[in-house]
Amino acid sequence: MSYQIAVLSGDGIGPEVMAEARKVLTAVEARFGLDICYTEFDVGGIAIDNHGCPLPDATLKGCEAADAILFGSVGGPKWENLPPNDQPERGALLPLRGHFELFCNLRPAKLHDGLEHMSPLRSDISARGFDVLCVRELTGGIYFGKPKGRQGEGDDEEAFDTMRYSRREITRIARIAFEAARGRKNKVTSVDKANVLACSVLWRQVVEEVAKDFPDVTLEHIYIDNATMQLLRRPDEFDVMLCSNLFGDILSDEIAMLTGSMGLLSSASMNSTGFGLFEPAGGSAPDIAGQGIANPVAQILSAALMLRHSLKQEEAANAIERAVTKALASGYLTGELLAADKRSEAKSTVQMGDFISQAI
Amino acid sequence: MSYQIAVLSGDGIGPEVMAEARKVLTAVEARFGLDICYTEFDVGGIAIDNHGCPLPDATLKGCEAADAILFGSVGGPKWENLPPNDQPERGALLPLRGHFELFCNLRPAKLHDGLEHMSPLRSDISARGFDVLCVRELTGGIYFGKPKGRQGEGDDEEAFDTMRYSRREITRIARIAFEAARGRKNKVTSVDKANVLACSVLWRQVVEEVAKDFPDVTLEHIYIDNATMQLLRRPDEFDVMLCSNLFGDILSDEIAMLTGSMGLLSSASMNSTGFGLFEPAGGSAPDIAGQGIANPVAQILSAALMLRHSLKQEEAANAIERAVTKALASGYLTGELLAADKRSEAKSTVQMGDFISQAI
Ligand SMILES: CC(C)[C@H](C(=O)O)[C@@H](O)C(=O)O
Ligand SMILES: CC(C)[C@H](C(=O)O)[C@@H](O)C(=O)O
Repeated sequence: MSYQIAVLSGDGIGPEVMAEARKVLTAVEARFGLDICYTEFDVGGIAIDNHGCPLPDATLKGCEAADAILFGSVGGPKWENLPPNDQPERGALLPLRGHFELFCNLRPAKLHDGLEHMSPLRSDISARGFDVLCVRELTGGIYFGKPKGRQGEGDDEEAFDTMRYSRREITRIARIAFEAARGRKNKVTSVDKANVLACSVLWRQVVEEVAKDFPDVTLEHIYIDNATMQLLRRPDEFDVMLCSNLFGDILSDEIAMLTGSMGLLSSASMNSTGFGLFEPAGGSAPDIAGQGIANPVAQILSAALMLRHSLKQEEAANAIERAVTKALASGYLTGELLAADKRSEAKSTVQMGDFISQAI
Repeated sequence: MSYQIAVLSGDGIGPEVMAEARKVLTAVEARFGLDICYTEFDVGGIAIDNHGCPLPDATLKGCEAADAILFGSVGGPKWENLPPNDQPERGALLPLRGHFELFCNLRPAKLHDGLEHMSPLRSDISARGFDVLCVRELTGGIYFGKPKGRQGEGDDEEAFDTMRYSRREITRIARIAFEAARGRKNKVTSVDKANVLACSVLWRQVVEEVAKDFPDVTLEHIYIDNATMQLLRRPDEFDVMLCSNLFGDILSDEIAMLTGSMGLLSSASMNSTGFGLFEPAGGSAPDIAGQGIANPVAQILSAALMLRHSLKQEEAANAIERAVTKALASGYLTGELLAADKRSEAKSTVQMGDFISQAI
């Protein structure tokens, strides 16, 4: 099998963790007889520096020609004072999501055995563990709804955004959540604000209708404000959380932080043809870039998600995930996951990549 | 001085905790020579049962004739299956906020000395304590923005909500946040999503302008998704958090849960004339209603906020707060704040009210 991958490493730690993901992919290609061709494109801050905009035409064309996008991370202090629309994150990620209609965002987050102490939760809560999949709608809602803008002058000047959801948009993301629940604990918690938002009333109604096709999956509804609370008290009681674009943005970050190990979390953003963008959940971490200490696991797991969802190479994806689990279980960890008195045992970015690719 | 208070006890534990707040207010009246006249009105579920709607005309008229509203809590399983607009919470709170233009919502939340173990945070994080005041805009944004509704049919049927903020609305709530910071740690963290929302871009701009009048107060901006994360890692680094209506709803609940003692948190919702609605942060807790075990402290502290903000009786408010601190510091606690093996020492709702009113 032969595939084309657009590699968008971006800024900060992006390039160094991407190098390790490529190393692991090379091992997987050899073992599973895959033929993957990679083409690198600038994105984010480096694209602003080299081409004057965060998502150059050549990058977009390169992505169009590929079977999937392997994305690093973008942004950093250098570009922080640009107008919002021109900034690396906003100017690259949102147009990519819109252009390829990547409506389905999967953000898995679990507390790894042995890493419970990294969680900011009280020890008796983290001891129970948790494993949550956030299914976030990614091309609708208040992110893309029109009209959006400004009008008026002086004190009356006002800004406006539109949250908008159609039955079609809600149905397709809800189905994905229910299907995902089937391979897990058969539970979907749909997050909304149906006591205030018209969009949420429709959301709840459509989700109820979709649920009829999945009688084996339990459905519950929760208000977004209550969800941020319950995740702190009983994260272990959630399985799949189904969220609109804005609520998913907020909740997936809260859940990611609850694991305490952002360097292990990856995410997939896909459209209905299986094409997708795969990226780590953490940011570009400019403060530690170039020091060889960044955790490459999230980037490596993004490659696994790419193999599974876009290239349909389930076995290869499993092999990567098993190798990562082996590394973590052997205490093979980068510094940020170690207690202060164990930091001397920390593995470098390159050592992590070497261990995981050898374990394939 | 003579005042008129509209008392809206509502459902669940509302009436029993309100009785204790009234007891404490009686002690305060005696000590400070105040003459407060209370009139009770139905609100929420009980108003639906007695009058067919959650906010009857008589209740609204009674509130109009008063100097302030002392609110209990509304809602319960009995009314859960009504259409959203008719439900107790939505049908009473939102119209009250809108009718009286209660744009300013103050939600203070701190970790009390000796109650750090109640927080769901890891012990080394909760040991540092925190004291956050959430200043939430309460009559604008996506809660009240027009148009809001539904259109179309079949798969194309869609729902829409409008987030809308004017310069005037942002300015008045921002000034309140900066003024509040002056009496605290001189720091305002403004929460937005300026990388996505036009409303947030205006919000950030206006907040920057208001900040010029408060050179002694430090201002920082944070995205809502990052805010939910940083509150888990370093809650002690926040002081005043300035939020729009929706983000304040989400964040104030997260912060409330971080204290682990919702029964101690009260909130104030005010307009520009000083008129306000004062209520506990927790809900109507129907599961424990009528057992005499509910914590009346949040309701009692709501009365203190009412004395301070609407009746301008700062001394009386301080006296209540000191009496509450004394009760908590003496280990005078309701059951939910005690470890399982100490539950036999739990004080009842009435005992708490007695202790605090005697301490006035
Ligand atoms: C960068 C930003 C526009 C983006 C979002 O809000 O979706 C990010 O926070 C994310 O969650 O991927
Ligand atoms: C009941 C609901 C409409 C309300 C809100 O969203 O404002 C509540 O959650 C609150 O925070 O007071």
